[in-house]
Amino acid sequence: MTRFALTVEYDGRPFVGWQRQSEGASVQGSIERALFDVTAETAAVHAAGRTDAGVHATAMRAHVDVVKHIAPFRLMEALNARLRPDPVAILDCQVVPDDWHARFSCVQRAYVYRIVCRRAPLTHELGLAWRVPQDLDAAALAMGAERLVGRHDFTTFRSAHCQADSPLRTLDRLEVIRDGDRIAIHAAARSFLHHQVRSMVGCLAMVGQGKRTPDELAGILAARDRAALWLNAPPDGLYFVAADYPG
Amino acid sequence: MTRFALTVEYDGRPFVGWQRQSEGASVQGSIERALFDVTAETAAVHAAGRTDAGVHATAMRAHVDVVKHIAPFRLMEALNARLRPDPVAILDCQVVPDDWHARFSCVQRAYVYRIVCRRAPLTHELGLAWRVPQDLDAAALAMGAERLVGRHDFTTFRSAHCQADSPLRTLDRLEVIRDGDRIAIHAAARSFLHHQVRSMVGCLAMVGQGKRTPDELAGILAARDRAALWLNAPPDGLYFVAADYPG
Repeated sequence: MTRFALTVEYDGRPFVGWQRQSEGASVQGSIERALFDVTAETAAVHAAGRTDAGVHATAMRAHVDVVKHIAPFRLMEALNARLRPDPVAILDCQVVPDDWHARFSCVQRAYVYRIVCRRAPLTHELGLAWRVPQDLDAAALAMGAERLVGRHDFTTFRSAHCQADSPLRTLDRLEVIRDGDRIAIHAAARSFLHHQVRSMVGCLAMVGQGKRTPDELAGILAARDRAALWLNAPPDGLYFVAADYPG
Repeated sequence: MTRFALTVEYDGRPFVGWQRQSEGASVQGSIERALFDVTAETAAVHAAGRTDAGVHATAMRAHVDVVKHIAPFRLMEALNARLRPDPVAILDCQVVPDDWHARFSCVQRAYVYRIVCRRAPLTHELGLAWRVPQDLDAAALAMGAERLVGRHDFTTFRSAHCQADSPLRTLDRLEVIRDGDRIAIHAAARSFLHHQVRSMVGCLAMVGQGKRTPDELAGILAARDRAALWLNAPPDGLYFVAADYPG
């Protein structure tokens, strides 16, 4: 048996999310089916993060155990050939030690949330960014973001369906980068609660619109109450962009 | 009658091209139908450039004459509402003098051609960039591009269907910008021949692969013979990005 680490890019639009479900196409199901076509083995693919329906990845990390003898490059090429026409691509494939685990060995996860500020509907990027019809004040967004960085109880920014044991998380980075009518919000942490990035982004957008202040944002964080949340941003703009491992 | 200048973004994937045709959906047809819904007028929309099937625009310029009294902002909003779900959006709408013509007044047109160098299939960007499975040498690309800038007979880089009177064109800019595995080729000229950008990009890619040299590229330009062309790049990576007007 060989354990392979995969780097996976996907377009979340047609999927119910990363995780295999009883109904609907999942990214995990798509890769597992391709793997079965290549190896005739039924193996579970484990990911660093289980993204929701409509959420994308440019570099999800995952692992899978394969009995068949196959070189990593050949496995990658064969998976990519079998994944068509699903919008999932294996960008990298490496042999890793048997105790390397995409989820449990991961020490940091990073997301980018993409916003386009304009009145006109999106065309090429429909479903690939969140369109906000007002201009957002990037400086106000950045001030709001600063209030969320650090170790906090993020109950306010956590979905009711979140399965994590604790609402405490350490947010290492929440940075706002503006480029014309585009805003990218970069978030990094050892791990995130369910909906945490989307909930933080939704509330930051209200600060950027001038409807709320950074102090009020700090207030709803301190409230530790999901009912205090102003807005959960849609999945469209969210991308899983990196998972880091020791060594 | 009021003449309106429009700035139009579109995703070329579902269209037979800009121009209305007897069969298939066109960008022009989509806007003209939306305009009819708004004004009950049958008016032709004229564009700075007539892009081919699968070619995109981030800022096509166009104009249309409208009898109905309507403010530019309201016209833009109404068109965008009627254009759904077609991937066409009006980004700007201004009143212009009656002799302003999107095509004939235009003094410079600019395109960007986007290449992604990687073996894995594209996901989010399928149809929105040209995937080249080898790494391209951006320095070689840039050296090749230099050989094409200036006033030349571009017969080699011109489709057999090109309707222009002369194959002489002055290429003002052909610049190669690399960002990781992405290459953007920026082209600007008063006007281009049919397929000129795609044909230049296809041949530059062969120089970037090391299969041909910049000198050989200069040679096929000098040949002034369509049969000398090595490769026409696919429409996927091509974007009309700007049209400039005097004043």
